[in-house]
Amino acid sequence: MNELPGTNLKAIGIVRNEVKQPLKQGWGKVASDIVVDSSLTEALDGLEEFSHIIVLYWMHRATVSGQLPSKVHPMGKQELPLVGLFATRSPNRPNPVGKATVRLLHRKGNILKVEGLDAIDGTPVIDIKPYIPGYDSVTDARVPLWVTNQ
Amino acid sequence: MNELPGTNLKAIGIVRNEVKQPLKQGWGKVASDIVVDSSLTEALDGLEEFSHIIVLYWMHRATVSGQLPSKVHPMGKQELPLVGLFATRSPNRPNPVGKATVRLLHRKGNILKVEGLDAIDGTPVIDIKPYIPGYDSVTDARVPLWVTNQ
Repeated sequence: MNELPGTNLKAIGIVRNEVKQPLKQGWGKVASDIVVDSSLTEALDGLEEFSHIIVLYWMHRATVSGQLPSKVHPMGKQELPLVGLFATRSPNRPNPVGKATVRLLHRKGNILKVEGLDAIDGTPVIDIKPYIPGYDSVTDARVPLWVTNQ
Repeated sequence: MNELPGTNLKAIGIVRNEVKQPLKQGWGKVASDIVVDSSLTEALDGLEEFSHIIVLYWMHRATVSGQLPSKVHPMGKQELPLVGLFATRSPNRPNPVGKATVRLLHRKGNILKVEGLDAIDGTPVIDIKPYIPGYDSVTDARVPLWVTNQ
């Protein structure tokens, strides 16, 4: 794997919520504030017209040192099959960037109140995008049995 | 905005297709190979059981130097309203990371053949995730008129 020159990321904001340690599940109802850098407040204008947004965040607690396993049990559940890292959403990846689609409850200046963001308090946010049905969604997606049976 | 230490990204793969210059639209039927670093071949195992994947990529041609505008006309179309940068999918963002949901046509070793990836030939890929309906999709999403009328 090649390091990409000039790709050091900037924190455009930070997650604030009550979750201090990663949860295995139960994120659906977690409310979070995304506190965006105040220099970027204007760049949020119009986002509040979207009901949902895509948040990219840096999973700063993921194990980035050492050798990553090629295969993992999804969500650490031993009863699920061992599959390739990229067939899972494990945070321990070559680039630990998380992607969540969340409901935007409201915006107040540089603060976005969202529901369902699976990131702990203090997580750096690296991008925010509007969720666009059709472009971001698929109607006929197929997944393996271990996903539906989990 | 704070630079995040230790976030230099790695290319886990590269996009290969016939598109040498960015297109404004018409990506839907573009076929691409994602040539994944051969050290990561095993980490792809099981991905082929998903019909769709999420690709995060570094938009290396985006203008990252100089001051970014706070507001833009979506897709550079002057007839669309001027909205905040984060209310658009413009590639010119503080962290030019693109996110596409694409159909996985097939996998052969370290090569993923996909359809609809809106990235030009040579684009570095930084992450690949399985598309999981329900987690990645929204059934009741609302968007502003300029999105539906474009």
